[in-house]
Amino acid sequence: MDGPIGKDRVMDLVTIDDVRAAAKRIEGVAVRTPLLPCRWADGLWLKPENLQPIGAFKIRGAVNAVGALSDEQAAAGVITHSSGNHGQALAFAAAARGIPVTIVVPNVAPQVKVDAMRELGAQVLLVPPSERLTMTEKLAAESGMTMIPPFDHHDVIAGQGTTGCEILADLPDVQAVLVPIGGGGLASGVAVAIKETNPAVQVIGVEPELAADAAESLRAGRLVRWTDEQRYRTSADGVRTNICERTFAHLKKYLDGVVTVSEEEITAAIGVLARKAHLVAEPSGALTTAAHLCHRAELPTGSVVAVVSGGNIEPAALLAALA
Amino acid sequence: MDGPIGKDRVMDLVTIDDVRAAAKRIEGVAVRTPLLPCRWADGLWLKPENLQPIGAFKIRGAVNAVGALSDEQAAAGVITHSSGNHGQALAFAAAARGIPVTIVVPNVAPQVKVDAMRELGAQVLLVPPSERLTMTEKLAAESGMTMIPPFDHHDVIAGQGTTGCEILADLPDVQAVLVPIGGGGLASGVAVAIKETNPAVQVIGVEPELAADAAESLRAGRLVRWTDEQRYRTSADGVRTNICERTFAHLKKYLDGVVTVSEEEITAAIGVLARKAHLVAEPSGALTTAAHLCHRAELPTGSVVAVVSGGNIEPAALLAALA
Repeated sequence: MDGPIGKDRVMDLVTIDDVRAAAKRIEGVAVRTPLLPCRWADGLWLKPENLQPIGAFKIRGAVNAVGALSDEQAAAGVITHSSGNHGQALAFAAAARGIPVTIVVPNVAPQVKVDAMRELGAQVLLVPPSERLTMTEKLAAESGMTMIPPFDHHDVIAGQGTTGCEILADLPDVQAVLVPIGGGGLASGVAVAIKETNPAVQVIGVEPELAADAAESLRAGRLVRWTDEQRYRTSADGVRTNICERTFAHLKKYLDGVVTVSEEEITAAIGVLARKAHLVAEPSGALTTAAHLCHRAELPTGSVVAVVSGGNIEPAALLAALA
Repeated sequence: MDGPIGKDRVMDLVTIDDVRAAAKRIEGVAVRTPLLPCRWADGLWLKPENLQPIGAFKIRGAVNAVGALSDEQAAAGVITHSSGNHGQALAFAAAARGIPVTIVVPNVAPQVKVDAMRELGAQVLLVPPSERLTMTEKLAAESGMTMIPPFDHHDVIAGQGTTGCEILADLPDVQAVLVPIGGGGLASGVAVAIKETNPAVQVIGVEPELAADAAESLRAGRLVRWTDEQRYRTSADGVRTNICERTFAHLKKYLDGVVTVSEEEITAAIGVLARKAHLVAEPSGALTTAAHLCHRAELPTGSVVAVVSGGNIEPAALLAALA
């Protein structure tokens, strides 16, 4: 899937067959999360991806991308430059296949994240923040390691889409699926899986008001990038990324709309998820629940599934949301 | 199943066929919870029953007991005297079958619990604490409602046992299953399900040191009751009950042992479950994780499943455990 044809495939959209192949690859490695009905919110069901082994849906894309490698590619190992959930997910996926993995991390990253990746068997390379991307590309070129980015990658998107297949299998009469948008990998994959199976189901993205580049891009009909300064205002650290051309192409074709939520709504949703659903969600993971609780009128009536994308929240932030 | 022969069946133990029949009855009503592997604890898997609709495994027993009623019995409704998780579970089960339900509650119970049962459609009857049991029996006799107690009931135990069937289906090579013991319904049902399917799997109960009546009863070979004063010392409000003759008979036959944990170990486990597993557990729900984290040497090596029985914790207690 990679190699010389990789770049030409930028605009080849992920297909439902790609997602179904991914579902086979992740079976027994990712957790088959259930749908949780919520008595406390009209028509709401939760898809708790915060219960995945590394605490986020990212494991689906990473396991699929690693699983799709040829034996020869796999033997050379994989590399990425994420210090967040994707870095841990790739380390986990590589360990599951028993292949080498290198994570290039800015030397300002919290020690706890570096330790988590090392515990998973990753070789962690600390570099100045400005050199992270170039160093990763240089290493990949020199060593033959395959670069697996967090969302701008066909097989990663297909892997995240497995979330959508499971939702349809468990709740065939769902009316809408809410999915957070950061880089757009999860939203792209889920939208393909849902709309190519049942176009009547609405797929709606959720962004913080303070990092709403996908909403603006879809309104404008072209990719609009927000600055780091703008995006880093949100507490939802998992969705501070801009979408890319590849994910924008999927969202433009498949997404039914985007709802934006305020910081206060995100914090309130973290508290509700803990108290009423007994789930610890990170701010990005609480976006979709915030949309349902505070923007019900903007959503279809009937059964709505909110994807709780991750649970890796700082203890202090969780305490603040519960207080 | 009730009526005149009820009392004669006290010592008829629940069978694996009873549990399998229960599994069919609860399908689509109770959540099919997954097993969650824990990278952060050697060999540990969690069975998150705190994700059930009313926040606890109790829904399994209640739905099975209500489902086992004849149409005639069902039409007359059900009654119980629990103001805790079982009361909510029975209200939920009755609503699912569309039959009347009365919960007799001491007039000192927190308003929030009364409201929760009323929201589920239950008729809540407030009585002085001392009259709770007699009033329930009087009402049942007068009205024809079937009394469904929280654990001293064949079908309730069979329903709780479905947890064990799911564990074996998802992890056939499990070495041990840890289950909290309060009244003993969950432990009895799970022990039947596991030991009658694969006797090589150890089933181990967990109690607070401060409410260890089952451990003492099993050592003594006879039912030993602890006083209210003794049992109410533990923070684990879900397991402050003594076991009964019926559950003792199951535990004596099937249980491999009991581990007791301290209050400090319970509080620490609540914190670990929130931070590392992204699950909110009540103190009783954290007992089994506490046993694994602090008493690993007393348990079999290899894969161990800890049943996280519930998540209905007071916000202040959760904050204290996280601080």
